[in-house]
Amino acid sequence: MSLAAMQLHVERNEEKNKLVADLLVQRFGERCSRSPSVCEQHGHTTTWLPNQAPDAVVFAENTEEVAEIVRICAEHKVPVIPFGTGTSLEGHINAPGGGVSIDLSRMNQIVAVNSEDLDCQVQPGVTRKQLNSHLRDTGLFFPIDPGADASLGGMAATRASGTNAVRYGTMKDAVLGMTVVTASGEIIHTGGRARKSSAGYDLTRLMVGSEGTLGIVTELTLRLHGQPEAISGGVCPFPSIEAACNAVISTIQCGIPVARIELLDELQVRACNTYSKLNFAETPTLFLEFHGSEAGVKEQSELFGSIAEEYGGGPFSWATKPEERTSLWAARHDAYWAAFTLRPGAKVVASDVCVPISRLAECVSATKKDIEAEGLVAPIVGHVGDGNFHVQVLVDENSADEIAAAEDFVERLNWRAIEMDGTCTGEHGVGQGKMKYLNKEHGKAMDMMAAIKRALDPDNILNPGKIFG
Amino acid sequence: MSLAAMQLHVERNEEKNKLVADLLVQRFGERCSRSPSVCEQHGHTTTWLPNQAPDAVVFAENTEEVAEIVRICAEHKVPVIPFGTGTSLEGHINAPGGGVSIDLSRMNQIVAVNSEDLDCQVQPGVTRKQLNSHLRDTGLFFPIDPGADASLGGMAATRASGTNAVRYGTMKDAVLGMTVVTASGEIIHTGGRARKSSAGYDLTRLMVGSEGTLGIVTELTLRLHGQPEAISGGVCPFPSIEAACNAVISTIQCGIPVARIELLDELQVRACNTYSKLNFAETPTLFLEFHGSEAGVKEQSELFGSIAEEYGGGPFSWATKPEERTSLWAARHDAYWAAFTLRPGAKVVASDVCVPISRLAECVSATKKDIEAEGLVAPIVGHVGDGNFHVQVLVDENSADEIAAAEDFVERLNWRAIEMDGTCTGEHGVGQGKMKYLNKEHGKAMDMMAAIKRALDPDNILNPGKIFG
Repeated sequence: MSLAAMQLHVERNEEKNKLVADLLVQRFGERCSRSPSVCEQHGHTTTWLPNQAPDAVVFAENTEEVAEIVRICAEHKVPVIPFGTGTSLEGHINAPGGGVSIDLSRMNQIVAVNSEDLDCQVQPGVTRKQLNSHLRDTGLFFPIDPGADASLGGMAATRASGTNAVRYGTMKDAVLGMTVVTASGEIIHTGGRARKSSAGYDLTRLMVGSEGTLGIVTELTLRLHGQPEAISGGVCPFPSIEAACNAVISTIQCGIPVARIELLDELQVRACNTYSKLNFAETPTLFLEFHGSEAGVKEQSELFGSIAEEYGGGPFSWATKPEERTSLWAARHDAYWAAFTLRPGAKVVASDVCVPISRLAECVSATKKDIEAEGLVAPIVGHVGDGNFHVQVLVDENSADEIAAAEDFVERLNWRAIEMDGTCTGEHGVGQGKMKYLNKEHGKAMDMMAAIKRALDPDNILNPGKIFG
Repeated sequence: MSLAAMQLHVERNEEKNKLVADLLVQRFGERCSRSPSVCEQHGHTTTWLPNQAPDAVVFAENTEEVAEIVRICAEHKVPVIPFGTGTSLEGHINAPGGGVSIDLSRMNQIVAVNSEDLDCQVQPGVTRKQLNSHLRDTGLFFPIDPGADASLGGMAATRASGTNAVRYGTMKDAVLGMTVVTASGEIIHTGGRARKSSAGYDLTRLMVGSEGTLGIVTELTLRLHGQPEAISGGVCPFPSIEAACNAVISTIQCGIPVARIELLDELQVRACNTYSKLNFAETPTLFLEFHGSEAGVKEQSELFGSIAEEYGGGPFSWATKPEERTSLWAARHDAYWAAFTLRPGAKVVASDVCVPISRLAECVSATKKDIEAEGLVAPIVGHVGDGNFHVQVLVDENSADEIAAAEDFVERLNWRAIEMDGTCTGEHGVGQGKMKYLNKEHGKAMDMMAAIKRALDPDNILNPGKIFG
């Protein structure tokens, strides 16, 4: 156990947890649930890690209520865990010390859309799809798109990204400012609506990716983008995964402002074909999209076409109609769920490495060899324009051997990425699952992170047992 | 005085300062100077604030030396202030408690350029122009360009930006990771070379803009960009400052990916004409640049042209030759120095507000009226695509009345911007000059900043007397 982790040890105090749950039931009535099924559901949903349920779930309706709940928890030093849609993948919302889950899904109002400033203000329970539906007629859109229809508060907490990040950045770029409830139940604002600021420490970026361990996000100001005048895209098969990766590397190095460039290996293509009723050749494939003017997207796609050809890829099949594009990207977003068709009833052990683009082909190839050597069922899919890819290892959750083999594989993958000057998590976050890699990845910088955590949450009540372990 | 400031009060201990200076002379010999002129020069250069000199200046040559100096200062609780080129504008490098200035200008090596990953590693004393000269033949460039040829370490410290920020972002976007010496003299790394990461707290972004108060940057990994295939640009006069601002607002709202869009009011144009021997009409003017493919820049500039016309602007005069463009942007970068031609011998009281783009015309117009009502000599220049503009008030530094009037004017300007949901500093940083505005701008979030400061620098030795006051 690292120094940072030792100082942030999680203890469970049944008596205090019960006391606080009683107080919250008194205060919030039916909006505070202690039902075992509700508690278990709030412990985790999309993760392979064992469930650790909170003692109570409160469905909060505004910032003041969140502050009030946190103050009650703070007084008794009881853990408090924010909950959005429960789609995080690394046990982010488990409650190893029990305590209170604050469900923010009822805080789902779009407070304001400031079209003229290309920004909006939303409550944390608004999901990415909800926001984009709301924006449809404004000419604007919000580009960050993890696979799940996650809540925007949760996406900020894990520093989420997705398929558009190569062009539009991640949540760190999308959040202009936030309202945050601190560990003592104070309400603060981390930024105004200016496009840039040098006025003091960047609390916005500190909160983004802090996974509910430094504060609870109760409102967000988000940057929006104009819907592109023209969109083109399609699918390009390659003879090998190296060839596909090398085409990606060249595309990025040439500075083609691709909006999306996604890799699916042959196994993932097969899974998507089955799940989404498609008919792609089962070979390593890139899904692409270009945004710009009519002339611009034509130019971009021609440039990409010539790069693909250089690496033996093609033919590039165009999705010219909007509905074709929609079904293509729906299939891509459903890749996680599609993987289960390869082994019905299995669980997924997820991974999420990101390496400098020059090491992408090497990292993917070495990983592919490892999958084959171990005989794992493990499709690869990734936001390769950023050097980010996922291996989804399908395991029988009742087989300790399989889980151990999958964990060993993911461990080797993470070390491989870190040794290539990359990271063990490009977008999923640390949660419980990635804690053990952080000391290797960050070294002494972990002590600085722990010092910040202790300063802002001295009693370790905010989502304890995450990040530091 | 705010709570945050009270707890971070600066004391001067002559005895300890002298002791540490003696120790550093023993250790570093001629590389540690106590000469009054050297010390004064390191107290401040480009600022209107009174000079507060350190007791000694050490010219460090590597990270380990910086760590050693900090450990000596930490042991005796003596202030330590990092120094790059001394071009900050708000007294960032003054030494209100005396102590030691660490001059990083000899740490000016470009450690590596990783063309294939579009990044590079540099020491903190490398300046932006030095880096771009080095990159000239690589097809890459570094876009962040404050007026001065500042050091990259200093630019990270103040979260600098410049004319290209509207397209390429600020230092917060440009820095991928850093080597930092902490307040206890430990060496940490805040990030690897992956394009994105969700692995723990974003220490990189926390350090960017922290003005040397949380750590001393001794190496930076910077994101680079491909030199655009085509560049076009030019100068567009407008009948009024409102018309120019409204053209900017429309350009941004239409999503034209302009690389630079800079406003100069008629007074600033006159100053640039004189200083840079140009011949522009003395009317509110936009300087513009478009980056892209040949077809792309043509399309962008035509779109802009039609917007300008709508607001009565034009004719748009093109700088087609590279040397014309170079002289245009050299004039823009020299705007600060050019201002002095309007009142030789004067000093500049700088300002740096940034507002949501929808409020830009309103904020600039109200400011212009205020200048006229006060009878100030104060040209306006700005990175208006981001809603950021500067008023440079020229004052006789021997006139207390003039300085007071300029300070009152800047104060009104800052309140105006903050009330428009903007900031008192878009890119210059806080230093000593902007401290009094932060409580209004950030409210209780200042307590969180102060808690972080105390956690990471419990003895308040790192650049004390800045940000919190």
